Amino acid sequence: MKEISGGVCAPKGFMAGGIRCGIKESAKKKDLALIYSKEFCSAAAMFTQNKVKAASVEVSQKNISDGKLRAIIANSGNANACTGQAGMAAAQRMAKLAADSLLIDPREVAVASTGVIGVPLPIAVIEKNIDVLKASLRGDEQGHTDALEAIMTTDIRKKEIAVEIEIDKKPVRIGVMAKGSGMIHPNMATMLCFITTDAAILPSVLDTSLRRAVKRSFNRLTVDGDTSTNDMVVIMANGEAGNENIMPGNNDNYEIFTSALEYVCAAIARKMARDGEGATKLVTVTVAGAGCEEKAEILAKAVASSSLVKAACFGADANWGRVLCALGYANVDFLPEKTNVNFLSGAGDVQVCKNGEAVPFSEEKAKLVLSEEEIEILIDLQDGNAKASVWGCDLTYDYVKINGDYRS
Amino acid sequence: MKEISGGVCAPKGFMAGGIRCGIKESAKKKDLALIYSKEFCSAAAMFTQNKVKAASVEVSQKNISDGKLRAIIANSGNANACTGQAGMAAAQRMAKLAADSLLIDPREVAVASTGVIGVPLPIAVIEKNIDVLKASLRGDEQGHTDALEAIMTTDIRKKEIAVEIEIDKKPVRIGVMAKGSGMIHPNMATMLCFITTDAAILPSVLDTSLRRAVKRSFNRLTVDGDTSTNDMVVIMANGEAGNENIMPGNNDNYEIFTSALEYVCAAIARKMARDGEGATKLVTVTVAGAGCEEKAEILAKAVASSSLVKAACFGADANWGRVLCALGYANVDFLPEKTNVNFLSGAGDVQVCKNGEAVPFSEEKAKLVLSEEEIEILIDLQDGNAKASVWGCDLTYDYVKINGDYRS
Repeated sequence: MKEISGGVCAPKGFMAGGIRCGIKESAKKKDLALIYSKEFCSAAAMFTQNKVKAASVEVSQKNISDGKLRAIIANSGNANACTGQAGMAAAQRMAKLAADSLLIDPREVAVASTGVIGVPLPIAVIEKNIDVLKASLRGDEQGHTDALEAIMTTDIRKKEIAVEIEIDKKPVRIGVMAKGSGMIHPNMATMLCFITTDAAILPSVLDTSLRRAVKRSFNRLTVDGDTSTNDMVVIMANGEAGNENIMPGNNDNYEIFTSALEYVCAAIARKMARDGEGATKLVTVTVAGAGCEEKAEILAKAVASSSLVKAACFGADANWGRVLCALGYANVDFLPEKTNVNFLSGAGDVQVCKNGEAVPFSEEKAKLVLSEEEIEILIDLQDGNAKASVWGCDLTYDYVKINGDYRS
Repeated sequence: MKEISGGVCAPKGFMAGGIRCGIKESAKKKDLALIYSKEFCSAAAMFTQNKVKAASVEVSQKNISDGKLRAIIANSGNANACTGQAGMAAAQRMAKLAADSLLIDPREVAVASTGVIGVPLPIAVIEKNIDVLKASLRGDEQGHTDALEAIMTTDIRKKEIAVEIEIDKKPVRIGVMAKGSGMIHPNMATMLCFITTDAAILPSVLDTSLRRAVKRSFNRLTVDGDTSTNDMVVIMANGEAGNENIMPGNNDNYEIFTSALEYVCAAIARKMARDGEGATKLVTVTVAGAGCEEKAEILAKAVASSSLVKAACFGADANWGRVLCALGYANVDFLPEKTNVNFLSGAGDVQVCKNGEAVPFSEEKAKLVLSEEEIEILIDLQDGNAKASVWGCDLTYDYVKINGDYRS
């Protein structure tokens, strides 16, 4: 597997584009994106588990139910959530506008929105600009970049990746774009993630593969514990790579493909954590030595979600007591008296707790370790062989600033 | 029922005192407290549900198991948690030192600690100062105040209250002191709460009464979602009021007593939320119109715990979409399309969402309402008659500041 450039346009047969249509107030920011495959695609998706779902989620869930898509239209600046029947009509209209301009069926279009909740979506500006949007489609990296910029909200960094693997001796590519930095928590928070691949794979197999990849990536990501109304991960596979349909069990192909999908999703998840609202650090929490992976995951999530642990990471304060405390309220059995805690980064490795008790350590070295941009909290339960990592970030002044007055 | 002064020394027969023994670094801050009843007491307590428990919790749980206590010794500046066998020995020694100086049995002493986790408790300074501590005992308000100051950590405001009720035509008093401002979440977070009463009541009845009061007060309080290793609520009843033993069912006495206990606990819970680390506002989240109280409570907790809602409260931003979003991930069924949301305070009442959708409102008025020090988010599910209120606070720059480097 090698990383390549091009994002969602890296796989054969995909085009993307992005424009400013006027949903966002800023005159400089793009806010409308389109991704399109000339060929029919197998498709799979996962959506927010929030009981309050945006109209775009309901429309996309319906359109993808037959496992087929050819396009995704997405806007930023307005979530089109809590907007009632008018919102539902607007989301359906978005699909229809994209479909008409691409000469495809509206049921082949997924719709995504992100932004403020509860404000009517200005569908008229989308309608007015739909031809400009279609004209912006390109099959190269610029098309990918334009579309990516058009789905960003408070994101500072771009979340994108593309890889190439080999299946049936044919190059198969996977490309990803994503947005999301606040309201992020396991089970799909405010994130949109669009994945393209030229692999040949049936919808049901693609669905299974996506679920495994998301379980070990986006569902192990937390920024602030809030899951949103709008999240979705959508993958489209157009088969242009020319491989035999990927099937589990037949050979290694399913494993190769799914591992690559997991790799790109985990890479994007880490980028989202690093770009968490106001974050200065990527904090990876790993629980090892657990009896099972599920238990390790629950414990790691509790630590990565703790406001006190996150604030201590911001302050580069080796306050490991808060780590034990967070493990303790995760509602999972473990043995505090066997638990070890280390803080790690490029600057070194400091053990701060052994068998549930303090061990002498250099505060100076711990400060250095925790001052790095990427740090890891490694917890060893000494009670088994399973492990899980969860990605989060620190809690900073800027998180409060960004979210104290997001709407203005 | 009337509010009176005197705190834990208001009920007959109780004395309290507090001194500086040298656990805290600051030369000005008290750090060791004692509460004592000359008579034998019925006692009940509730402890942290964190699986990592401080030594003081284990010692107190054991000592209170027979429903009797006569004293509480408490220190601040050191949690004596994650300190292994040495920590357990230190907690037992604290009980013994208090008991010896008071000429009572160590099993009649509850021990409490609060402060940094994982640092050995300097028991020698407690031993050295135990006679000074005993000599500080007073039966008046000053004794209460000294003890209260000695259990405070990052608390800015004092949490104290006392009330008088009438039972069997005799005045019965209840007095409370508490500490806690960070690491606070339902199910007893870093809070210590000591309650005295001169009511005559059997331990088992006192226990039932305390559990009901705590369920509707401290367990409906959230500051940052972290529950600590050290929390406890202890109540001692010495019977000096001379009433008949309070029993459920016989007459109204149990209801009168428990209502008063619930009242003082709720008052303290609100004070804790208002004094949440870095908080500028008390935020009461009420879910009404619910099918049952449990459901209302879970939904209200989700809203009060949301970092995004808390940050919006700080910024006085009427971002009600975040309220609906938090309801949506609480994992409880409700009908978003019937949900109403109002923001209330002394400055007015603004409806922002009706039947799950935006309603036009004055942003200016909403800003005024949310700029008050005490605000309420009222959610009406229009689906029943049950309701529950949860107390929380806003998320501010100062929360991050306080917790970014707590240990230094």
